[in-house]
Amino acid sequence: MWTEGYIAVDWGTTNRRAWRVRDGRVEEEFADDLGFTSVPSGGFPAAVEQIRQRLGDLPLLMAGMVGARGGWVPAPYLPCPLDLATLAAGLIEVPESRAFIVPGASFVDGLRADVIRGEETQFFGAVDAGLCPSDGLICHPGTHNKWALMQGGRLVWFRTVMTGEMFSILKAQSLLKAWLDKPAHPGKLFAEGVARGLEGRAVTADLFTVRARVLLGTLAEADVPSFVSGLLIGADVRTGLNGMPEGEVIVMGRGALTQLYAAALTQFGRPNRQVDGEEAFLAGTNAIVERLS
Amino acid sequence: MWTEGYIAVDWGTTNRRAWRVRDGRVEEEFADDLGFTSVPSGGFPAAVEQIRQRLGDLPLLMAGMVGARGGWVPAPYLPCPLDLATLAAGLIEVPESRAFIVPGASFVDGLRADVIRGEETQFFGAVDAGLCPSDGLICHPGTHNKWALMQGGRLVWFRTVMTGEMFSILKAQSLLKAWLDKPAHPGKLFAEGVARGLEGRAVTADLFTVRARVLLGTLAEADVPSFVSGLLIGADVRTGLNGMPEGEVIVMGRGALTQLYAAALTQFGRPNRQVDGEEAFLAGTNAIVERLS
Repeated sequence: MWTEGYIAVDWGTTNRRAWRVRDGRVEEEFADDLGFTSVPSGGFPAAVEQIRQRLGDLPLLMAGMVGARGGWVPAPYLPCPLDLATLAAGLIEVPESRAFIVPGASFVDGLRADVIRGEETQFFGAVDAGLCPSDGLICHPGTHNKWALMQGGRLVWFRTVMTGEMFSILKAQSLLKAWLDKPAHPGKLFAEGVARGLEGRAVTADLFTVRARVLLGTLAEADVPSFVSGLLIGADVRTGLNGMPEGEVIVMGRGALTQLYAAALTQFGRPNRQVDGEEAFLAGTNAIVERLS
Repeated sequence: MWTEGYIAVDWGTTNRRAWRVRDGRVEEEFADDLGFTSVPSGGFPAAVEQIRQRLGDLPLLMAGMVGARGGWVPAPYLPCPLDLATLAAGLIEVPESRAFIVPGASFVDGLRADVIRGEETQFFGAVDAGLCPSDGLICHPGTHNKWALMQGGRLVWFRTVMTGEMFSILKAQSLLKAWLDKPAHPGKLFAEGVARGLEGRAVTADLFTVRARVLLGTLAEADVPSFVSGLLIGADVRTGLNGMPEGEVIVMGRGALTQLYAAALTQFGRPNRQVDGEEAFLAGTNAIVERLS
């Protein structure tokens, strides 16, 4: 079935991307903002059909929120430690649809529990294609930033920090919202925010100082997005690195957000390197397809 | 002017309260949800007039957000350390209105800045009336929790933590919103949350574990409000107590929220005692009026 090519789909919380792949290479693609939270209840079959209308009548290999509760068809969370062969063997076939959903992964340690959907495909793909080492720490920024530890090519630990979502909801309705409608930049005020975020106070304390500083005239309104972004990312980086091994951190993803995380890691004294998340994702779906053929 | 009695008004972010006071005693009062964020732009004169219609044509002594930027008339922030006599001497008179606004207070230490409006009247009132000692730490829960250090009856330090606002915005639109529509209770799950909040990770990390635990079946949906409340209050208490002197903490306010903070402080091993915030506020306005007459 897979020899004719396939469509890879990465369904995120706030957007989705799809690629038509033949012989391991992308022929056509699109991205839109029909993420998990924008698909209406019961709307996944139509949203999936739309992908085939745009990219062709091919088998679908989908990862991410399409397999979540409230998605198209539930796919389980496979427990860590997890390897690529187990992930590929756990694909969920949607009946009579030539569509397959990659399982998510779970991590449980006492009272702490965590889940992931979609990024696991990127992690395994990046290791399989040699984009990142088979041992080391990955940071994957997004709506929900994921810190992941790979050992011998296996996913052994991860932690989610909802930094992107927190920035969005502060922008939508907090006392800071009027000042957060511009993008953040990795400059002096971002670094100041990171430095405070790394100190480990409740972020709800430092967030209020932003309002106070604007009112008292010691912080310019235009600098608020960079400072707040620095605060949240600094706290995120402090938490993500805690207890993790030394060495280079792989920052996986694309665009402005990965650059902000890279800047914060550098400020924290950690060597880091950016890896393109799309390239990693397609390496992951190709690696899974190889194991199916 | 003040011998005929006065109306005291505490104008908060999400609600307001007003009392008609004669000879230091309350004759009549009301409270409604016309807080600062609910008054339309330019709506303060009408919102103030409404208070006199309900309680009588008397002088007004107002504290809180009525003096903020976007309020009725701007009242300054007086810097810490601050005493009651300086606060009373700094009243702002609204022209031709027989209305006076209590200034706010500010605290600046390097890059940290903080402001307060309304609670300062409660702090000074509580000390003046002997409801709390003139030296010690006060915790004042609310939309914005205030930690305040009194020394010799002066306000020398304070820190705002926007815990209540964070809970509200998570409830309004985060991935946890469906599970946060019930009140929190100080029981086992609240204590679990407090314990995790005290550990000092980014709260954005522990918040995501809530979703993961519900999905994986290790946390009941009904327990989410208490656990999340515990997480946020635990992080708040850890930050508020940091570097502060030992000894009893005064928890000032009223109702369920002060009880949750008292429970968290007890869990942290700190003796604490609750003081009624309304009683403290009226003690504060009476103390100011005495200094004016």
